[in-house]
Amino acid sequence: MENMSFILFGATGDLARRKIFPALFNLYRNQKLPKAFSIIGIGKEELSNKQFQELVIDSLYEYSRHSVNDKAQKAEFVKSITYISLDITKETSYQKLLTLVKKVEREHNLQENRIFYLSVSPKLFNVITTNIKKSNLSNTSGWKRVIIEKPFGNDLKTAQQLNDIVQNAFQEDEIFRIDHYLGKPMVKNLLTFVSANPMLQPLWNKHMIANIQITANEEVGVGSRASYYEQAGAVRDMFQNHMLQLIMMTAVTMLDERNAIKLRAEKVQLMETIRVENQHDVVRGQYTKAPCIKGYKDELGVDSSSNIETFFAASLFIENPLWEGVPFFVRTGKRLNKKETKIVIEFKNVLNNHEKKTNSKPNLLTIHINPDYGISLQLNSKNPITGELETITMNFSSNDKDIPEAYEYLLADAIQGDLSYFTHWDEVELAWKSVQPIIENFHTNKIPLNFYQAGSNGPKEADDLVNKHGYKWW
Amino acid sequence: MENMSFILFGATGDLARRKIFPALFNLYRNQKLPKAFSIIGIGKEELSNKQFQELVIDSLYEYSRHSVNDKAQKAEFVKSITYISLDITKETSYQKLLTLVKKVEREHNLQENRIFYLSVSPKLFNVITTNIKKSNLSNTSGWKRVIIEKPFGNDLKTAQQLNDIVQNAFQEDEIFRIDHYLGKPMVKNLLTFVSANPMLQPLWNKHMIANIQITANEEVGVGSRASYYEQAGAVRDMFQNHMLQLIMMTAVTMLDERNAIKLRAEKVQLMETIRVENQHDVVRGQYTKAPCIKGYKDELGVDSSSNIETFFAASLFIENPLWEGVPFFVRTGKRLNKKETKIVIEFKNVLNNHEKKTNSKPNLLTIHINPDYGISLQLNSKNPITGELETITMNFSSNDKDIPEAYEYLLADAIQGDLSYFTHWDEVELAWKSVQPIIENFHTNKIPLNFYQAGSNGPKEADDLVNKHGYKWW
Repeated sequence: MENMSFILFGATGDLARRKIFPALFNLYRNQKLPKAFSIIGIGKEELSNKQFQELVIDSLYEYSRHSVNDKAQKAEFVKSITYISLDITKETSYQKLLTLVKKVEREHNLQENRIFYLSVSPKLFNVITTNIKKSNLSNTSGWKRVIIEKPFGNDLKTAQQLNDIVQNAFQEDEIFRIDHYLGKPMVKNLLTFVSANPMLQPLWNKHMIANIQITANEEVGVGSRASYYEQAGAVRDMFQNHMLQLIMMTAVTMLDERNAIKLRAEKVQLMETIRVENQHDVVRGQYTKAPCIKGYKDELGVDSSSNIETFFAASLFIENPLWEGVPFFVRTGKRLNKKETKIVIEFKNVLNNHEKKTNSKPNLLTIHINPDYGISLQLNSKNPITGELETITMNFSSNDKDIPEAYEYLLADAIQGDLSYFTHWDEVELAWKSVQPIIENFHTNKIPLNFYQAGSNGPKEADDLVNKHGYKWW
Repeated sequence: MENMSFILFGATGDLARRKIFPALFNLYRNQKLPKAFSIIGIGKEELSNKQFQELVIDSLYEYSRHSVNDKAQKAEFVKSITYISLDITKETSYQKLLTLVKKVEREHNLQENRIFYLSVSPKLFNVITTNIKKSNLSNTSGWKRVIIEKPFGNDLKTAQQLNDIVQNAFQEDEIFRIDHYLGKPMVKNLLTFVSANPMLQPLWNKHMIANIQITANEEVGVGSRASYYEQAGAVRDMFQNHMLQLIMMTAVTMLDERNAIKLRAEKVQLMETIRVENQHDVVRGQYTKAPCIKGYKDELGVDSSSNIETFFAASLFIENPLWEGVPFFVRTGKRLNKKETKIVIEFKNVLNNHEKKTNSKPNLLTIHINPDYGISLQLNSKNPITGELETITMNFSSNDKDIPEAYEYLLADAIQGDLSYFTHWDEVELAWKSVQPIIENFHTNKIPLNFYQAGSNGPKEADDLVNKHGYKWW
């Protein structure tokens, strides 16, 4: 690993505290940071280095999965952290920042390898990236990279604008767009799992697979995120990015994940062939009150006439020779009865024998992404006592508390310059293109808003979506 | 179920006590016997009905998997048991028996459906079956069946003689030859398991399977069975019957087990195409002493110069379009390091990608027959902490104490007239034909006797057998 500076905009923000510092610390603990590195935090607040370092330590105590009790280790880690208070809307701030970065690079004997992490509102991307370029902060003798977070636009047009802004200062292969679902341990494993098991090779296609069901359900409601959510809804918050990425990662046939260029190119190809059949294949819903639970319209910060969807489901098809005719059903929502992210592969009943007619159930391969990390397989077997056919489930699950969090994987990749698990602009743009007509149909109410009680399974229309193909949600 | 009489020769013997009565009682408890039935025990000993019924109850206390504490139930069960002391080598005995059977049939209001269970030495088959016929015991207005136990001959010739004797009194479809491995719960499930899971369909052939390994290892030594074992050895005791049956049940493609005629015909076809490549593909071994454990030659009743094998291994091929080129490795022995009967399906590495070259391990599907009842699947997955490929195991196992024993399944089948899990004469004859050259090579020492220490893995020559194909025992 090459040494580097990690320059964090929004260093006093929520994401930094909850995810970024804990991830950096855990990488540090596991020797997954370069031997020499510096972290430069940028915020509005006037803080000394010492004060900021204490904030960081507080965040570790609260959010790090590894204990922070080793004093020497903690001290060593925070030693690499510097803070600077800047008004990032001012051009002059970036000269100050450049001076600091150069000073730190000298002191730590670092090459000019710089990661800029924009953990700020996208509204600030323009002023930050423009000034990174103008100030020569990005004119390094080493490499430069930028990490950005969603939301990456609010629709196709704003996404394109945002991309033009970022690409003005960084090349596409310097831009690390985070979709944290791609960093979830089981998603990180998915491609390997499919490609490293010979048994799965003859099974992973339209001949053997009846349908694929991707679920990302939450029990919680909109919480404190109403102001964002009122602009987004489930389609922007979950479907345009995370759900489409899970579809791509399931459908991808590129067998060597170690090649980011090929992997992302294959995903782009898939995204080009993805199709929502028509507006009847999309369901939107909003939760209504239940005993002791507020309905969405009554949530703090939500317009009482809001028609923003808190639930989204769709059936999609990938029109390529491998997957044509296989429905990909997706559903995601808030205030549902179970917190669960999983991919269920339902196999076709290709049997041509007596067992086909008996009460055999479909073979299912389930990839458990969250909160469990695991794989399970549902097969048919004869009950040794009754002699009847019954389903059995073979499980693998890891309850290992030591499994890294998504941000650890993603930051480690970014530090090593591996783009495999970051989204290419072409993917993002195609995703917006496929979502755009849905958003427009929402606005014009061509797709009706259905309601479901908080704590339920979601709107019954989501069941119809699957039932009409002869299937049911698993 | 039709009512019937169950006429047991050898009723005071070991098998009756340990297996037959407990099985009948458990079937009775689970309403798997006909509403009306009678059990007639035949033995040399002079015992009253009452005394014999008490012997039966003792055997239940010792060997029944269900408790025998329900007094009414116990009383009801033994009520159906009658005992008769006979010298079965005398013709006149069979008239007495006929008189008794007819009396019991009248009393219990039974049709003349008779099962004759020959739980006696094969030396007595001739006199028994001849007299069953002569006495008109087998001249029933209902159906008649005979159940016989191994050893079914000591070689091809004696097996043919024995079969002629039995077929003189019974038709082939009245003969229920017990191979108790076919009654083991997981073996009883195997055909259903393979045929009821669409996922397995494209996998169950030479294109996907590298090899199949069938292990039936015991920890115990020859124990009190030396006099039998000295005539038999592992090849006759295990390979000619149980191991060949396990091969057939794994390789069978007949997809509806409910058709005994087809299933047995398919097994006969398989047996016709089975081939031991040459004498180098057969390994025989004998255990030698270990600390605190006697060697075979020192066992009570064993000739100190005995060259009887206590271990047998072979690689076989089934020369049909589905299985050609797939080695079936079998091994079985006494005084090995682990008691275990299992079938391991090792899949080919058909991958053509990066993962092929990494340290991916073969995909394995393991059918656990004994002492566990279960299925496990070994797959490759990425370790979420190290990022390295590792094997994971998905398990299904049943520790249900309520799973019936082999004899329950087999007796229930026999009572219902279902021959599926009994061996057809054609199978037995072909099995002897395939074993005959091996036996002869043992006699002439063309296949050397190897030695292995008691408690070890068996002779290293058994490893060579598998290694030379590029595989290893799992």
